[in-house]
Amino acid sequence: MTLRIIATGGTFDKHYNELNGVLGFAESHLPAVIARSRMTIPVELEVLPLLDSLDMQDPDRQRVLASCQAAAEKAIVIIHGTDTMRETAAVLGAAGLDQTIILTGAMIPYEIANSDALFNLGFACGVAQTLPAGVYVAMNGQVFPWDNVTKNRAAGVFQQL
Amino acid sequence: MTLRIIATGGTFDKHYNELNGVLGFAESHLPAVIARSRMTIPVELEVLPLLDSLDMQDPDRQRVLASCQAAAEKAIVIIHGTDTMRETAAVLGAAGLDQTIILTGAMIPYEIANSDALFNLGFACGVAQTLPAGVYVAMNGQVFPWDNVTKNRAAGVFQQL
Amino acid sequence: MTLRIIATGGTFDKHYNELNGVLGFAESHLPAVIARSRMTIPVELEVLPLLDSLDMQDPDRQRVLASCQAAAEKAIVIIHGTDTMRETAAVLGAAGLDQTIILTGAMIPYEIANSDALFNLGFACGVAQTLPAGVYVAMNGQVFPWDNVTKNRAAGVFQQL
Amino acid sequence: MTLRIIATGGTFDKHYNELNGVLGFAESHLPAVIARSRMTIPVELEVLPLLDSLDMQDPDRQRVLASCQAAAEKAIVIIHGTDTMRETAAVLGAAGLDQTIILTGAMIPYEIANSDALFNLGFACGVAQTLPAGVYVAMNGQVFPWDNVTKNRAAGVFQQL
Repeated sequence: MTLRIIATGGTFDKHYNELNGVLGFAESHLPAVIARSRMTIPVELEVLPLLDSLDMQDPDRQRVLASCQAAAEKAIVIIHGTDTMRETAAVLGAAGLDQTIILTGAMIPYEIANSDALFNLGFACGVAQTLPAGVYVAMNGQVFPWDNVTKNRAAGVFQQL
Repeated sequence: MTLRIIATGGTFDKHYNELNGVLGFAESHLPAVIARSRMTIPVELEVLPLLDSLDMQDPDRQRVLASCQAAAEKAIVIIHGTDTMRETAAVLGAAGLDQTIILTGAMIPYEIANSDALFNLGFACGVAQTLPAGVYVAMNGQVFPWDNVTKNRAAGVFQQL
Repeated sequence: MTLRIIATGGTFDKHYNELNGVLGFAESHLPAVIARSRMTIPVELEVLPLLDSLDMQDPDRQRVLASCQAAAEKAIVIIHGTDTMRETAAVLGAAGLDQTIILTGAMIPYEIANSDALFNLGFACGVAQTLPAGVYVAMNGQVFPWDNVTKNRAAGVFQQL
Repeated sequence: MTLRIIATGGTFDKHYNELNGVLGFAESHLPAVIARSRMTIPVELEVLPLLDSLDMQDPDRQRVLASCQAAAEKAIVIIHGTDTMRETAAVLGAAGLDQTIILTGAMIPYEIANSDALFNLGFACGVAQTLPAGVYVAMNGQVFPWDNVTKNRAAGVFQQL
């Protein structure tokens, strides 16, 4: 089993810029996070332009799709912002790829106290290896099919439609 | 899907006692860790006596088995020390229960920098929901059948026999 | 020696709101931070309205002054945003109080990785007990008199005029 | 003002070795801690052999004394284990040097949750710049003269004799 992790930004990977006080993006945290995970299976990390998912446009989602299509791995984890995770999942789901693709992210950035980022990544890396081919969202300790998931923004949790 | 998490101690749950400088056990970290995970599936936490797995005796493993047998949940995650995780897995595996039981732990305690504990818990909570009934060890981002796993102590990683 | 700590907000005390993704204010972190410091001298914590220092108006600074004037303690540490720390220091300095008043803050919030908040609080609590009466800014491991300090925003450091 | 920081080990600098589960010493955390402090005064770091202070012998204390005697800086912070901090302070105090020497340490290692290490270092770096020449222990947010301090091991705090 080989795993591909595709970083696209989102809350998971945000970084606090101390010069202007803004939570934005700098270098991805994923290399450090993957080292911390002590995974011994081969992991291929691909860092796409890091974006807030509210800023993601169609070409950005097509780029994620192209990365999946070009990937040799059967198990793929995509780190993505939560606000439009469902939209990107729909683009990938419609493509009908023969891979297990898991989208995950975080409600609190990896570098902020009490973050769920590391838990979510672990969860996603597990189910990416065990679920049949398909596109799924994994958040809140649950697996959702790509066409039956929504973010309840008031409650800050993912749920079925 | 309902999940049972059984805490038995191990490196994952060790606590630094500032009065004597010893890494031992106090209250389990699991309630805080589960809250941090933001899991929305029902999670039942069962805290057994917290032990270093090198101190685990047969009655301790039988107690873990009894907890699994008494559990209504089909998905169980057991937090366990790494040094004898395999031995407890063998006791559970020989019992042939109709549940998916995942043993996991950590190389670095949850409360120490760079810990793999949260990743491993996420991984275990994922595969506990997706693997068929059986007993597995989940460490280093991999799933091992209970009868084909060993800890390579020199390298600090789990691997197949 | 008794110490008063006055929390006014600023980067030090910002909290990430996972529902809207905004770094703002909730409960002050100071009670937890003071417990963590293990200070055994009597410490009186006073939490004023928590503000981004760019939002501080004259009445807000007068409220800080009033708190100092009403305080029985001779040593006072004020947690303050960095952007207008100097302006509040000037209001306090002009009042000529017979207390040692130290303004400090942080470049990175306490709850974000690599924060300087705890170091700065320790530094401030030390010099508050050892400097003569007066008003000082303590940042970057240095003590600045209230009338000879400025924040170099491009470099993100405090320096003399 | 220039500051010398001398690392001698102690709880502050302990590191968890994941291969054997022992809290011992590896590379000092001090370079990372000093960077995190964002100090802009010149800081000279000197890393002596890192020891648990219960393992410190007379030659080890003489080495610390020799480092102080050889130092050009008037302000010195020594990171030291808490159990024999007082004994090393006595050796330094008896030497009557014309420097301000502050011994500090931590009850919980820097890399473990809820550590007081960063607070204590900040406190020590502050009073090292503001106290008159002499040898002091700075712990629990207090300054103690070298000849009037003891560690209350049952309570885990420093206090006057």
